[in-house]
Formats: sequence, C-alpha cells, structure tokens
Amino acid sequence: MKSLSQNVVDRIAANIEAPSELWRQRARAHLDTLTKPLGSLGRLEDLAAQIVAIRGERISKPNNKGVYIFAADHGITAEGVSAYPREVTHQMVLNFLAEGAAINVLARLHGVALHVVDVGVDADFHNIPGLLHHKVAPGTTNMLHAPAMTDDELAAALSIGDTIAESAAAEGQTMIAIGEMGIGNTTAASAITCAITGATAAQATGRGTGVNSEAHKRKISVVDAIIARHFGDSSTQPSPLDILRCVGGLEIAAMAGTVLAAARHKLLVVVDGFISTAAAALAVAIAPAALGYLIAGHQSEEPGHKLLLDHVNLTPVLALNMRLGEGTGAVLAMPILESAIALYTQMATFASAHVSEASQ
Amino acid sequence: MKSLSQNVVDRIAANIEAPSELWRQRARAHLDTLTKPLGSLGRLEDLAAQIVAIRGERISKPNNKGVYIFAADHGITAEGVSAYPREVTHQMVLNFLAEGAAINVLARLHGVALHVVDVGVDADFHNIPGLLHHKVAPGTTNMLHAPAMTDDELAAALSIGDTIAESAAAEGQTMIAIGEMGIGNTTAASAITCAITGATAAQATGRGTGVNSEAHKRKISVVDAIIARHFGDSSTQPSPLDILRCVGGLEIAAMAGTVLAAARHKLLVVVDGFISTAAAALAVAIAPAALGYLIAGHQSEEPGHKLLLDHVNLTPVLALNMRLGEGTGAVLAMPILESAIALYTQMATFASAHVSEASQ
Repeated sequence: MKSLSQNVVDRIAANIEAPSELWRQRARAHLDTLTKPLGSLGRLEDLAAQIVAIRGERISKPNNKGVYIFAADHGITAEGVSAYPREVTHQMVLNFLAEGAAINVLARLHGVALHVVDVGVDADFHNIPGLLHHKVAPGTTNMLHAPAMTDDELAAALSIGDTIAESAAAEGQTMIAIGEMGIGNTTAASAITCAITGATAAQATGRGTGVNSEAHKRKISVVDAIIARHFGDSSTQPSPLDILRCVGGLEIAAMAGTVLAAARHKLLVVVDGFISTAAAALAVAIAPAALGYLIAGHQSEEPGHKLLLDHVNLTPVLALNMRLGEGTGAVLAMPILESAIALYTQMATFASAHVSEASQ
Repeated sequence: MKSLSQNVVDRIAANIEAPSELWRQRARAHLDTLTKPLGSLGRLEDLAAQIVAIRGERISKPNNKGVYIFAADHGITAEGVSAYPREVTHQMVLNFLAEGAAINVLARLHGVALHVVDVGVDADFHNIPGLLHHKVAPGTTNMLHAPAMTDDELAAALSIGDTIAESAAAEGQTMIAIGEMGIGNTTAASAITCAITGATAAQATGRGTGVNSEAHKRKISVVDAIIARHFGDSSTQPSPLDILRCVGGLEIAAMAGTVLAAARHKLLVVVDGFISTAAAALAVAIAPAALGYLIAGHQSEEPGHKLLLDHVNLTPVLALNMRLGEGTGAVLAMPILESAIALYTQMATFASAHVSEASQ
C-alpha cells in the first residue's frame, strides 16, 4: 500500500512538463539578432532562454515576484548543533513580520512580495496577522533517535507546498523564491546531502550560522550518527520521501512540495541556499522534469551547498559568500533575472538599429 | 620639463584621499549588531563597509547612479583585430542614443542615468542631441607603427574625465559606472595588460567581440609586435602615462581621468570589464589612493581581465561570462551594491528586534 506522503507527491507532481525546447530554441535565435556580439551576454543569455522556455510568449508580460519563507523548528537542536538558541526561529519570524530582517529589506528594495509561512515553529503565534498559519507540528523529533517526522506530518508539510504554489499561481506570480528559517536546519540539510550524494558528514557539514571549531566537530559527528541511524543498514539508496521523513525538516518538506507544485504550474522557482537546495534536490529526485523550472540564486559558503548544486547540475547566478538563508540569495539574484528578461524583450536588433554584423 | 599630460594628471589627482578607515570600522561594528549571524552577508558586508568608508554619514542619503559610456575609434583596426567593422563604433553610439543597446535596457531597468561621451569616434555627429561632444580626434593612430596618440591628445582625453566626474559630482551622483564602446579596444587593453603586469600577449589577448581562431592568433601577434615596438628596448617599467599614450585609446584615457577625478570627489566608481579595468589599473598606478573608490562590477570572459583584477587586487561582484562592455557588467552589479547599502541602513538590530544573540 502506498504511504500517504507518496499519494500526496503523486498528486502534486502529476503532469509536470519540462519547459519548452521549441521556445528555448526560438529564444536562442532571437538573442542572436540583438545588437551585441554573439553570445556576449554570457550567462544572461542562458537565463533568458530558460525563462522563455518556461513562459513562452508571455515573456513580455509583467514579471511578478514573490518570496516564501518557510519556518520550522528542529528536534536536533537538543544536540547543540547551532550557534543560536532554538527560540531564535520564533524571534526571527516576528522580525520578518516587523519587516526588520535582511529578507524584508531586499524584498522591499527589489519589489518582491514577501510571505512568511509557519510550517512548524515551536511557539504559539495565536492569530498574528501577516503570517500564513500552516503549523504541522511544533518542530521535528530529534532525528538522532527517531525519524524527524511521521509520514502523516510529511504528507501535511508537502501539501502546504502545493497550497503555496497554487496561491502564487492564482495571484499571477511568475517567479518565486523559496527561503527558510529554522535553527538547526543546516544539520538536516547536511544529512540530506549525505543521503543524496553519498558525501561524508565531514564533506557535507559546515558551520551553519557560525559554530566554533569544537561545535563544528560535534556537528559532524551528529550528522554521521544520524546517517548511520537511518540509512546505515541499507545497501540501497533511500527514497527521497524516506530521506525527507527521517532526516528532513517540516520547512524542507514544504519547500520540496512547493518546487513540485510550482513546476506543475510552470512557475520559475529561484532556489536560495543550502537548505532550500536540499529541498529542491529532493524534489528533482522525485520528478526530474521539475529541474527546468529551477534557477540557483547563489552559492553559499556552506560546503554542502556546492555538493548539492553539482549533484542536480545547477549553476548559481551569484557567489557572494553569503550564508544567511531567508531567501536572501534568491531575491538578490532576481534583479539579474529581470535584467535577462528585459534585455531579451527590449534590445534593438542589428536590422532595426542599422548596425553592421560580424564579418568573421 | 613636465609633459602636458603629466600636468593634467597632477591637477586631477591632487588631494585624492583614501576612504575613511574610521568609518569602515564603524560600519563593521554596526553590521555586527544587525539581526543575522555574524558575517553571514558575506561579500555584501565588505561592500557596505567600503561604501560607508567612502560616504560616511551620508550613507543613508539617496544613492544616485550614473553610467558613462566613452566611445572612440582605434587605428589598430587596420590590422584586422576585430570581428566587427570599425564603423560599428559610430553605429552603436547611434544605437545608444536611440535607446536600443543592452546598456540602455539595463540603465532603464535599474534607474541609472546614462550618458554617452564621444571622445574620439571616427564620424561626424554634427550637433546630435543626447551626446556629450568631447571629440579629441577621429580615433587613435595605428599603434603598430606609432604611438596611439600625441601627448596633447592624451592630456585632452584625461581632462574629459575630469569634466565628467566634476559634472557627476555636481549633479549629486554618488555611484558612477564607467563603460566604453570602441571597435578594436580589446587589443589596446591587451597591450596595456602586458605593459602593466608583464603578462605575455598570448596570456593577455582574448577573442574580444568574438574573432575566430585564425584571427585570434593574428591578434596575439599584433599585440606582441605592439609591445616590442613601444616597450621592447626598455629595461624599466614604462610609466602609466607612456602606456596610455603609446598603446591606449582615447576612451581609455578619458576613463582613467574619470577614475582619478571621481576619487578626488569621493565618488564610488563601478568598473565594468576588461577595457575599463585597464583604465582603472592605470589610474591606480598613477594614484594608489584611488583604489578605495573602485568596485569591480564583474569579471568578463576576456583572459586579460582577470590578470588586471588580480594585479590591482579587485574582487569582482559578478561573474556571468559576459564580454560586452558598454558598462553593462558595472550597471548589472548596481542592484547588488544598493542591496548592501539598504541592508546596512534598514535592518533591525538584535536589541531592537529582541532576537537572542549567538551563544558561542
């Protein structure tokens, strides 16, 4: 019998179509007519072609941007894996709602609608306005000792992603960033990276928010123990859903669901840092056609992030040594993506501007 | 007796003061109070600290952005070093004025005032509106056979930069990008790179706008011959002004003058690609204190660009495999720089937002 989470994923990921190759080729041909040396816009041309492959003739319509921050707590914080106390997840959600965090500043500056989603914060927000209330549980279980969540919880968290992508599409958003807040969640992302890529805990585990060397060593041994606990006996690759359930997080599952549902709705998803890329990598493992809807906003300082980006074959737009999360690296890449769209739709052609073409 | 160009430079570069170390330290201290893990904004924190060191308490005032495109022709085009015919310089200036080029699209999107400066285009623009008319000569001399310009021409081109920076400061601009248009000018930039860094022509010479392999080989041998012609006999490092005069370009000299005068006016200068970095490197060789006012917008695909960036010790903000010029890479970096400023001035502090600080 299929698990509940498998049923949810089958529904969310049904009918995901890869972006249009025909439109991608048309885009390439159009780019070569614009008044610039062939290929001289480099990565911007690749980005424009990808976005045209997703949006087709709607490329010249307004580009409405959104960022979704998924917040949840992690049982693994009991093991002292973070430089910050667990209550910072709750405090930072309040900071988001008060518009004081880094992501608020960036979203405001770049015209990106910001939404904060409580998926599993260990605090009672009552009916505080401005928050999307989708709490599945007050955090995960300590995955050093048991699966991070039950299959019911996983199914619920994945479904939240479906709801989010559905409403983003209904609101006419065309480009959404996924970000997160959850003290302890780099430990989950490191465990996911080990499970997906086969990397060792030492390779996949960084300093997160900035633990000292001693705590970093402890964090590596915790990740090692987590992997041994859940996947040590198995000679086969664990399934993406098993990875999510055993060593994931509620916000990570919700982001994976968002990626799948966004791909179904043909929305571009800008992935942020290590944790959101872990979610995206699991979504791609579930439905490979979702990959064409993803753009990696940046490469963070977390060593596991590069392992994941290479594994799913995403090239980051920016590399600014950031390690903040919240969707900051994804939103920061949006002006670059908008630049690619604007160049594609607004530049003159050699013919229209009477500029001579290359002689060689 | 001092040359005329030396007199001009002595005047332009007089009283350049490095950005304030005191303000840089204040900026670092303030960044550490903001609601984010220490240092987690990575490069954005370095950029914010540099900009605060330049602007001091005026950091919270509006940031007015400009981009200046310096256009000129090059005698070296007679040697077949470019994929595009020489008249494209003229045609692209008209394209800039008609708002059809890549830089027009990017400047419009990111709210950057665009100015086009004719420093030495081989065409008569009559009194066409929208162009800043500063033609020194209709292009340089073929530097394979003679110095690219006379000392009088060099002095005039440097002075244009002074005029431009002066008017940018008078208009209240706080952040200016320098870009260029000039068929043949990657050959000049390659020769400058060899003269400054000691690199070989093969190391410093790329494909420019996209010459084929055969033309690329010819271009390398042309650069080799240029260096032998002008600096082959000398056992000493040629002076920056000799390099500019012998193997530079009128637009390159004007950009070098702009960098020096902008530093004197304490304006931030965002450098674009290979050619504008060649100008900036010469400006820094003339007045090392100017370096603190420079930010490298991006790293282009031209191999010589990385040599120059490393030589002057600038780390590019973006690396998107662009090789277009016009100031495009510099303007594309401006939303990132504005993000750094906005984060610095608008984020909540741990104290104001009641967020717990790190325990380690």
